[in-house]
Amino acid sequence: MTLRALLLSGWVRSVRPQKENLFLHVNDGSSLQSLQVVASSELNHRLLTFGSAVEISGSLVTSPSRKQDVELQADQIDVVGECNPIKEKHGLEYIRQFPHLRCKTNVFSSLLRIRSEATTAIQQYFKEKGFIQVHTPVLTSNDCEGAGELFQVEPAGQEKNQDEEGHQHFFSVPAYLTVSGQLHLEVTAGAFPGVYTFGPTFRAENSQSRRHLAEFYMVEAEISFTQSLEDLMKVMEDLFRSTTEHLLSQCPEDVALYHKHVITYTEAINILNSSSKKFAFKTDWGSDLQTEHEKYLVKHCGDVPLFVTDYPYALKPFYTRDNQDQPLHTAAAVDLLVPGVGEMCGGSLREERLDLLKTRLAQAGLDETYGWYLDLRRFGSVPHGGFGMGFERYLQCVLGVDNIKDVIPFPRYSHSCLL
Amino acid sequence: MTLRALLLSGWVRSVRPQKENLFLHVNDGSSLQSLQVVASSELNHRLLTFGSAVEISGSLVTSPSRKQDVELQADQIDVVGECNPIKEKHGLEYIRQFPHLRCKTNVFSSLLRIRSEATTAIQQYFKEKGFIQVHTPVLTSNDCEGAGELFQVEPAGQEKNQDEEGHQHFFSVPAYLTVSGQLHLEVTAGAFPGVYTFGPTFRAENSQSRRHLAEFYMVEAEISFTQSLEDLMKVMEDLFRSTTEHLLSQCPEDVALYHKHVITYTEAINILNSSSKKFAFKTDWGSDLQTEHEKYLVKHCGDVPLFVTDYPYALKPFYTRDNQDQPLHTAAAVDLLVPGVGEMCGGSLREERLDLLKTRLAQAGLDETYGWYLDLRRFGSVPHGGFGMGFERYLQCVLGVDNIKDVIPFPRYSHSCLL
Repeated sequence: MTLRALLLSGWVRSVRPQKENLFLHVNDGSSLQSLQVVASSELNHRLLTFGSAVEISGSLVTSPSRKQDVELQADQIDVVGECNPIKEKHGLEYIRQFPHLRCKTNVFSSLLRIRSEATTAIQQYFKEKGFIQVHTPVLTSNDCEGAGELFQVEPAGQEKNQDEEGHQHFFSVPAYLTVSGQLHLEVTAGAFPGVYTFGPTFRAENSQSRRHLAEFYMVEAEISFTQSLEDLMKVMEDLFRSTTEHLLSQCPEDVALYHKHVITYTEAINILNSSSKKFAFKTDWGSDLQTEHEKYLVKHCGDVPLFVTDYPYALKPFYTRDNQDQPLHTAAAVDLLVPGVGEMCGGSLREERLDLLKTRLAQAGLDETYGWYLDLRRFGSVPHGGFGMGFERYLQCVLGVDNIKDVIPFPRYSHSCLL
Repeated sequence: MTLRALLLSGWVRSVRPQKENLFLHVNDGSSLQSLQVVASSELNHRLLTFGSAVEISGSLVTSPSRKQDVELQADQIDVVGECNPIKEKHGLEYIRQFPHLRCKTNVFSSLLRIRSEATTAIQQYFKEKGFIQVHTPVLTSNDCEGAGELFQVEPAGQEKNQDEEGHQHFFSVPAYLTVSGQLHLEVTAGAFPGVYTFGPTFRAENSQSRRHLAEFYMVEAEISFTQSLEDLMKVMEDLFRSTTEHLLSQCPEDVALYHKHVITYTEAINILNSSSKKFAFKTDWGSDLQTEHEKYLVKHCGDVPLFVTDYPYALKPFYTRDNQDQPLHTAAAVDLLVPGVGEMCGGSLREERLDLLKTRLAQAGLDETYGWYLDLRRFGSVPHGGFGMGFERYLQCVLGVDNIKDVIPFPRYSHSCLL
């Protein structure tokens, strides 16, 4: 039965010439599903190969086969873009060497569709909750809490622009690529109930591991007028749940839904110390949790997403809110650990009390640098908190992808910046 | 009439103490509109000043005044964040010096809401049209057609990592901040009918003009299986129209709707040469259109958005499709000029014919550098085209804002990278 006339534009995924008929599978990029095309053998052509781009006009009809509901009976086939001979199937590692061609594979075109849907889902989630999306800057003069592994930026050929004193910086001050939009988000949280940012962040980490990229995407949010970690955890959990539900509703694949668990840092240390397992890193109270610890804790709690709260004050950056719970002195910080990936989100309440923040910055010798940050507390500050989620780690977790380089279109890492 | 109990969290926009009653306007960041709060004079407090953050519980009631429908009768007022004395009104130029505080002004909090809505609208438009959103990289080893004014990136403190040969680049090759996602988009357009990117791009332009930023946002799109500039122009116009309609539907303000006009570059040159106006720059066929020309053309055509098509081949980058229309040799490129701003979008069909592209790259000595780009034409290339829209210029145009620095949260330009 003819359903309608159709002009199909797409790429050939298979060519099966038979005696009377030619069978093609053609993919138009809108989904993983290709359309079967049936044509008279006379329409076959030497340029009609795997990967070639075609425009095919014909009739969409009910398919006699059980493998598909419909197929296209072709009247005319035009090869609009030929394709050099190419193998149909390759491993992820092999195709990673060809970033300009890997979106032509099934697995990577799926990834790009999922990444796009996940981006939509994240933005929809925050919009429905009344958050404002803020484009926090990539370039910053903030040296990001003195953290190492910053990229510095100057105009190419800067040597020529030196004055007698040495460098004349383009921005008058040294400029870096952002490692987090948090401080800029806190600025805008001074006028809105909720703000978020979703964009690239950078680390000059000399690592080629499966876990690290020099450029990766972060979702970061700040929420005003909140005083409890529970409020933050609710947003982190809702974001994860609604984004994942959106992805599931767009995919036929079944994905296990998650339960969750909440423990404090102090409970986590007790669990680690009662374990018979030998850890490479220290597990005494005050030590930071390492990947090996995080993986053990996730397993111990039943391989479900795990919130760990209230970390030692001394481990956390200056802006983390003091729990004032001496002698075990903790701060209101929370991490979300997930199976297979480890830390996916990290958040905290921010110290809104001017005197405490001032003292802490002065002790660190940072009170001049962060004068503007102290100002935020002088001009209508509110109790607020926020968190960041690694977008690539989220995708790895949901998709079970082992290497972070396989969930980003153009991976950048040390010694590799292809294209 | 009591409508409901309410807990209001927000920032004080005005304090008017009267004999028996205290009147406040409190803004919660969700819109420009503040809520009037009425309280007994006893609830006044010296910390209750313009800019302070408050939590107020009370009853939402019908207002006796005609100025508002409802008001909040306060039972309790807590100042959760005090605010140092601050003037209520300042010009855009003055507040630009305080990026950490300017979102507390009406005009800039409006801008942030509009920017967020426009971002949503752009993403919704492309999603409805079946485009995939691609996160094209900020870091690139591509020196972007040899264009000047690139930022180069190395780890901070790179000097220490030099080997005997001089620099040891972090990425093994020099890396730059992207000036356009177009080439990366073309890669992904090799597997999808339509792709777009929306993110920051960079120019190391030593300019402090009202028109230039070192970091700004671009919307860029590529469309496969298209052969005509009309197809591209339709998307550019639809994007502009639907984004603006979305903004209008969210704002009470009335904004004039636009008509449009289409002329070729050759017609544009004829218009300029028949004019009695003296231009500073040349107007002979083959010269690029300067801002003064663009402004004249927009005015000449009735101060409406103006598409200019088919520019001289020699003026356009290597990837622009050759119109093969000797002796007046043009390429299939189009710019969208708008009143007040000048060029807002630029687009072209991309040269999909391998032989023509190869010859052109060889003539420019770029065939080795762009081997991967030639590859795209060897592996199922299709006729395609795309365009870029300056997001800040779009906002300037729609809002009538004169200085580009006033439509971005944290402006970066030469000698200025505050925060």
